[in-house]
Amino acid sequence: MIHLYTWGTPNGRKLTILMEELGVPYDIHPIDIGKDEQFAPDFLKISPNNKIPAIVDDEAEGGPLSLFESGAIMIYLADKYGQFLPASGAARYTAIQWLMWQMGGLGPMFGQLGWWVVSDKEQTPKGVERYAKEAERLMGVLDKRLSEAPYVGGDDYTIADMAIWPWISQYRTRVKDHVEPMVQKHPHVLAWLDRVGERPAVQKGFALP
Amino acid sequence: MIHLYTWGTPNGRKLTILMEELGVPYDIHPIDIGKDEQFAPDFLKISPNNKIPAIVDDEAEGGPLSLFESGAIMIYLADKYGQFLPASGAARYTAIQWLMWQMGGLGPMFGQLGWWVVSDKEQTPKGVERYAKEAERLMGVLDKRLSEAPYVGGDDYTIADMAIWPWISQYRTRVKDHVEPMVQKHPHVLAWLDRVGERPAVQKGFALP
Repeated sequence: MIHLYTWGTPNGRKLTILMEELGVPYDIHPIDIGKDEQFAPDFLKISPNNKIPAIVDDEAEGGPLSLFESGAIMIYLADKYGQFLPASGAARYTAIQWLMWQMGGLGPMFGQLGWWVVSDKEQTPKGVERYAKEAERLMGVLDKRLSEAPYVGGDDYTIADMAIWPWISQYRTRVKDHVEPMVQKHPHVLAWLDRVGERPAVQKGFALP
Repeated sequence: MIHLYTWGTPNGRKLTILMEELGVPYDIHPIDIGKDEQFAPDFLKISPNNKIPAIVDDEAEGGPLSLFESGAIMIYLADKYGQFLPASGAARYTAIQWLMWQMGGLGPMFGQLGWWVVSDKEQTPKGVERYAKEAERLMGVLDKRLSEAPYVGGDDYTIADMAIWPWISQYRTRVKDHVEPMVQKHPHVLAWLDRVGERPAVQKGFALP
């Protein structure tokens, strides 16, 4: 059984979407970050970086395994169940490349935009402008990629799509005044948001926990 | 032959270190980001996100392969040459977990600290404070991890060490007033910086291109 420690953030929703897509048994342990539950000692044993999501796989090869970092968990689960990430070859590493682009670029920069717009009460212009500009650049990179292929990894739907989709979908609402106009300017991103969003597992996973 | 497109940044140096550790033939194509060479059309074909490093492996299985995102390139090369990342099991995914922690946490947050301290001429206090605090938190997480194991992935030196080491090493100088005091407060990080820094391939790779 996979035990998933998560909350309703884009990084958390990546994993509920993936678990719903895989269709394997799992349970959800909500970690309410609004109540600072990510700092509880029991949770820090699993996720010493005090972030959700994290998992414990009590049936892992060689004994129970705990993992944190959404991107690492996605690769682990895709490999374990042999789905949504090719086992070898160019298609595997191209999907991992776009997963890394989300982990190192889109996620952190959208996250910072959210902080400077929503959490910084003064909405310091220098902060908002810096991260809005970077978010717009990243959206253009994604649009160009999706003009070449139906999914970010290429012909097939992979964990890279599942990693990027909840960030843009949630931030269309969370930082609406900035992100929604960016999305509307990028037709290939819009079409892909619909294409991925039509999947029942994506809809169910995005609504959890 | 691996063709490496890079420059002397922490992300670039991850790859020169890894290539030196692997000891396989490669050549370096310098991309001078001070002269905006990352926006040249020929480079964008390889790295559409306009960032270094990127590679072209003209002897990849199935035909030439180009990849960007340092973390993805590291996994690809470690798998291709069967070194510095176990092929399966808990040790593999634990190393990938810490690689992701660098890609999604330490790298972006140190990078932002550098921008607000070095590139923002006003050194806007809210920016400097936000990212200095996050950098300090991350340094504490790393120190705790290195109190448990000699390398971030566990008993063995992996690509996760090669990903984190150049970020801290370069930022000890680049953002010295902030980063050096953090390093000095964390004895396990200090010992690990020395342990990894003694490796000839790390010294050679850190000096390239």
